[in-house]
Amino acid sequence: MERHFHQELKELKEDLLRMGSLVEASIHAAVSALVARDNYPAEKTIKEDMKINTCEITIERKCLELLALHQPMATDLRFIISTLQIVKDLERMGDQAVNIAERVLILNQEPQVKPYIDLPKMTALVESMVKDSLDAFVNRDVKKAQSVCERDDQVDDYNEKIFYELLSMMSKDQTIISRAVNLILIGRCLERIADHATNIAEDVIYMIEGRVIKHHAEEK
Amino acid sequence: MERHFHQELKELKEDLLRMGSLVEASIHAAVSALVARDNYPAEKTIKEDMKINTCEITIERKCLELLALHQPMATDLRFIISTLQIVKDLERMGDQAVNIAERVLILNQEPQVKPYIDLPKMTALVESMVKDSLDAFVNRDVKKAQSVCERDDQVDDYNEKIFYELLSMMSKDQTIISRAVNLILIGRCLERIADHATNIAEDVIYMIEGRVIKHHAEEK
Repeated sequence: MERHFHQELKELKEDLLRMGSLVEASIHAAVSALVARDNYPAEKTIKEDMKINTCEITIERKCLELLALHQPMATDLRFIISTLQIVKDLERMGDQAVNIAERVLILNQEPQVKPYIDLPKMTALVESMVKDSLDAFVNRDVKKAQSVCERDDQVDDYNEKIFYELLSMMSKDQTIISRAVNLILIGRCLERIADHATNIAEDVIYMIEGRVIKHHAEEK
Repeated sequence: MERHFHQELKELKEDLLRMGSLVEASIHAAVSALVARDNYPAEKTIKEDMKINTCEITIERKCLELLALHQPMATDLRFIISTLQIVKDLERMGDQAVNIAERVLILNQEPQVKPYIDLPKMTALVESMVKDSLDAFVNRDVKKAQSVCERDDQVDDYNEKIFYELLSMMSKDQTIISRAVNLILIGRCLERIADHATNIAEDVIYMIEGRVIKHHAEEK
C-alpha cells in the first residue's frame, strides 16, 4: 500500500510535468505565430488547449483520490495540495496562450505595426519562468523558485514599456489603433502568465519550507 | 473532537464569506469611483487589498491544519479542498479590483470620455455573480451555481461591446486614446472577475455533486 502510494505520487509529478510541457509549447507557439506571421502555430495553440484542460481534470481527480484513500500527512499532504494549486495556474496559462493566439490570428491579417523587439524578449523571459517554476517543483529547488519570483518585476517592466510605446504610436497614427490595442492585450496576457509562474514558485517554496511568501506574509 | 471539527468547518465558512464581502465591496468601490469621478473609494480599494490578502493566508492555513489534523473524508474533504480553490479565486478578484482602481485614479484626472452606460450594468452583473457564487457555496445551491455559469456569456458580450465601441471612438478622436485603452482594460478586469466567479460556481457544483463541469468534462 505504502509503496503503491509513492508510485502514484511519482506518476502525479510526471503528469504535472507533461501538462507543463504542453503549456510551455502552447505559449511559445502563440507568440511564434505573431513574430513569424504564420497562423499555423496559433491555430495549434487553440486546438491543443483541450489537451491541457483534460490534464487538469485528470490530475485533480488523482489528487482527490490520493487524499481520500491515503489520507497523507505532512510532506505528502503538502505535495498533493501544491499540485492542486499548480494545476490551476497551468490551466490558466493555457487559457492566456489561447487568448494570445486568437489575437495573433487577427493581427496576422493586417500589416505588421512595428518590428517586434521587446515582445520576443518578454516571451523568452516568461517561458523561462514557467519552465523554472516547474523544475523547482520537481527538484524541490527553493533557490530556483526564488529566482522565478525575482524575474516577475522584469516582466512587468517589459509590459509597461510595450504599453506606453504602443500608446504613443497610436496617438501619431490612428490607422494602427486596433492592432496596437491587440498588441497591448497580448502584453497583458504574457504578464498574467508570469504571475501564474510566480504563484507556482510561491507554492513550491511553501511546499518545501512550509513558509508562505506570498503577500510577504512572513514579514508581517 | 468531532464536534470541535465541525465548529472549525463552520468558522471556515464564515471566514470565507467575510472575505467574499470584502472582495465584493472592493469591486463595487473601484467602479463607483469611476462613475462618480470620486477618488476616495478607489483609494480605499487599493488600501484594503491587504485585508483580502490576509484573509487568504489565514483561510489557507486553517484548511491545511484541518486536513493534517483531522484527515477528513468524503463531503468534508471536498468542502476543504473547494475552500482552498475558492480562496485563490477571491484573492485574484481582489487584485483585479485594485487594477481597476489604479486605472480609475488615472482616468479621474482627465475629462470623461463618454457617459458610462454599459460599464455600470456590466459591473452590477459581475457583482451579482460574485455574490451568488458564494451564496451557492454556503447554501449548497447547485441551481444558483449554474445560474452564475450562465451569466458569464453576458459579461463577455458586454466586454466585447465596450471594446469595439471604444476602439471606434479612438479612431475618430485620437486625443482620447490613452483614456479609452484604460477603459478597455477595466472591461477586461471585470471579465476576469466574472471568470473567477464562474470558477467558484464550478467548484460548488463539484463539491455538492462530485461532478466536474468545467471544460464540459462530463460530456466527453
